[in-house]
Amino acid sequence: MNMATATEIRPLNEIGEPPTASIGRFYDPEVEIPTGLETLRLARAVQEIEQPTLRKLHGIAAGRKLLSFAVGMPAHSLFPAGALAQIANERLLNDALALQYGLPSALLKERIVELMARRGVRCRSEQIFLTTGAQQGLNLIPHLLLDPGGQVLTEETIYEGFQTALRRFGPELLTVSTRASGPDLDEVEALLAAGARPALMYVIPDGHNPLGSSMTVENRERLVQLARRFRMPILEDDAYGFLSYGREAPPPLSALDDRWVLYLGSFSKILAPSLRVGWLVVPEGEIAVKLSALKHSSDLDSSTFSQHLIGKYLDSGAFPPHLFELRREYQRRRDTMLRALEQHFPEGVRWSRPNCGFYIWLELPRHIDTAELLRLAVATEGVSFSPGRAFAVGGNRHADHCLRLSFSPCSCEDIEEGMIRLSRLVQRYL
Amino acid sequence: MNMATATEIRPLNEIGEPPTASIGRFYDPEVEIPTGLETLRLARAVQEIEQPTLRKLHGIAAGRKLLSFAVGMPAHSLFPAGALAQIANERLLNDALALQYGLPSALLKERIVELMARRGVRCRSEQIFLTTGAQQGLNLIPHLLLDPGGQVLTEETIYEGFQTALRRFGPELLTVSTRASGPDLDEVEALLAAGARPALMYVIPDGHNPLGSSMTVENRERLVQLARRFRMPILEDDAYGFLSYGREAPPPLSALDDRWVLYLGSFSKILAPSLRVGWLVVPEGEIAVKLSALKHSSDLDSSTFSQHLIGKYLDSGAFPPHLFELRREYQRRRDTMLRALEQHFPEGVRWSRPNCGFYIWLELPRHIDTAELLRLAVATEGVSFSPGRAFAVGGNRHADHCLRLSFSPCSCEDIEEGMIRLSRLVQRYL
Repeated sequence: MNMATATEIRPLNEIGEPPTASIGRFYDPEVEIPTGLETLRLARAVQEIEQPTLRKLHGIAAGRKLLSFAVGMPAHSLFPAGALAQIANERLLNDALALQYGLPSALLKERIVELMARRGVRCRSEQIFLTTGAQQGLNLIPHLLLDPGGQVLTEETIYEGFQTALRRFGPELLTVSTRASGPDLDEVEALLAAGARPALMYVIPDGHNPLGSSMTVENRERLVQLARRFRMPILEDDAYGFLSYGREAPPPLSALDDRWVLYLGSFSKILAPSLRVGWLVVPEGEIAVKLSALKHSSDLDSSTFSQHLIGKYLDSGAFPPHLFELRREYQRRRDTMLRALEQHFPEGVRWSRPNCGFYIWLELPRHIDTAELLRLAVATEGVSFSPGRAFAVGGNRHADHCLRLSFSPCSCEDIEEGMIRLSRLVQRYL
Repeated sequence: MNMATATEIRPLNEIGEPPTASIGRFYDPEVEIPTGLETLRLARAVQEIEQPTLRKLHGIAAGRKLLSFAVGMPAHSLFPAGALAQIANERLLNDALALQYGLPSALLKERIVELMARRGVRCRSEQIFLTTGAQQGLNLIPHLLLDPGGQVLTEETIYEGFQTALRRFGPELLTVSTRASGPDLDEVEALLAAGARPALMYVIPDGHNPLGSSMTVENRERLVQLARRFRMPILEDDAYGFLSYGREAPPPLSALDDRWVLYLGSFSKILAPSLRVGWLVVPEGEIAVKLSALKHSSDLDSSTFSQHLIGKYLDSGAFPPHLFELRREYQRRRDTMLRALEQHFPEGVRWSRPNCGFYIWLELPRHIDTAELLRLAVATEGVSFSPGRAFAVGGNRHADHCLRLSFSPCSCEDIEEGMIRLSRLVQRYL
């Protein structure tokens, strides 16, 4: 660059000063534009990608009056909006740095350590890594552990958000089936014993999305032993572990091992999704530094404003009764949906009975394509769900006759009405 | 999965129900752990990465009473905290969906279209893509356009955040030097004419970070013509374009071309960084869909709560006087820093004179290593800056004797004092 030296006295603005310009002469339609291939050439990896199915469903639902069981939205009537408004107001008016860039909230990390203790996990504040929603954790962990083309072990039916996070790595996907007790560990062991060396395994031990299942304690112990024996990192997605019904969910895998298990938590289901705050619990040491560098390139900082709101909310002691209320209400909704399924659905339809989370998984007779059924459900019955295909790893068709229902966003009355409408449609197909 | 059929009457919770467990028996220290290579194997691409220099500086500054000119933080005294508190309160108490997942804010997109018109860019709401801060835009655009190992054209001294966003692609970096009038377009043309086909070129036409320079109108026109002729997409980073001093910055490249230029804007410098809202203006068509899919895998949604706050703030008419006040105050700070540099700095030190943005770039005599100088500055003078090396593309050493000063975060008194301290240190080195 040309620059002034200190001793030359030059007017301010001299360096780099552009002449003024009237806006009018910009964007001249007379300028010749070459014709032909006019569009930007996209990277190969994105040429084929489409909007995720769940996002499309969200879009469909947005424009209509639907009874929607498609998306795992928490019940907005249960958000602690008043308490958060008070904290937001206090923070904005009294803390000059409320709107500034900031380091991850130390207050929130400490409160998360206490939350983790409720789940039976002992950890230190240094192990907590705050993310922009849990999805950012699902995105960062493959970046941390997975080389392009590397192996990833997962169930054959799993949350779409994890699949989209993997796509850019073109991984070799190793899949196992899911039983009521969790991922089939005989299959996992067979794969590992045969030489598979996945960079990570992804599991949702409680309130499985989309299957609604939870792992038994025995299987948790066995899986952790497999992880140690074969040095296989596990990404444990516990977005729903706090939302257990009837009794506490057992401690997550992280409670059994703090070296091979990376824990992923989220405030989206238990507090408020629009604040976009999730967290990882990782082994102490360099991993947090690497994650910080990866995150920096993704979005620089998370919103410390959101982090502080949640930290202060947890600090206020309001969370335990709030969580109690969430569990009570979601249990009512789950029970209502299960009863309605039993009452209205025909023989040949089967479903899971979750004791945690938001989802019930339905298997319809094999000749029914639920993607097709969804179009009819929206058009003729004003009701929606997520077709099984959205969760099938690697574009497999094994879940084409299945669907996921979220009981979380709808009132008990709407659940009753929705199940009547959906069963009416399914009857027509049998 | 094993599942109950509709006709079998089975108790709730039967499927997937784990036995209860006492927390105490988890994490058994008696369980044999293999010794040796105990740590997780990290992906090759992250083994070498470190915390970005600017993040480290942020960390250093956080623990001390420093006069810090290191980080491009806006002045927190200028945040419209009261107005935002009022909007947050109103929104949380009156909109049941304020805390829910949500589609990108239509209100905010419309207000951004109006902001763009202020910069001389005509666009439609459909072209606005909202991001989690501008950094997410810097991250998404390479994912959109760049294949692994592909070419990227940039200046040899450029914002670190763009460099970190590129790292995972292992791109071939083509660099050109920077003149007072912007990137050297003769060099750009020579590269393109010789057959270079970069997947994108990155430019900061106004308030260059870190150089403080701005492109001339003539060079903007010439660069856009080059982009069209060689079908080269341009990522235009306009984080500072609204913050011009003395006169309006000329319209950005996007005003000249809406097919090859992707515009990146940010509310971090003109409103509040902790809300984490930025935006892209992209050509109409499939690009927004692709970006949406890429973003979905990164963090699902941005905070619609933040988006709404900003949308309503812009809606209120408070932004133009706010921006006027920002410009007035930052101009005072810039002028104060330039005067202090002239008054206190020795011969042989040169600097840029920005008419836009937050930064002044200093060239010290070549024998001074500013990374080393920084350590001394912090330890002995309680003052900090960003060493030139943080911005040198590809780890080059050409800027080792340079440094970047941010005049934005400090009061005029602190700027005076800081320049006296820094000049004292530099004198000792000459």
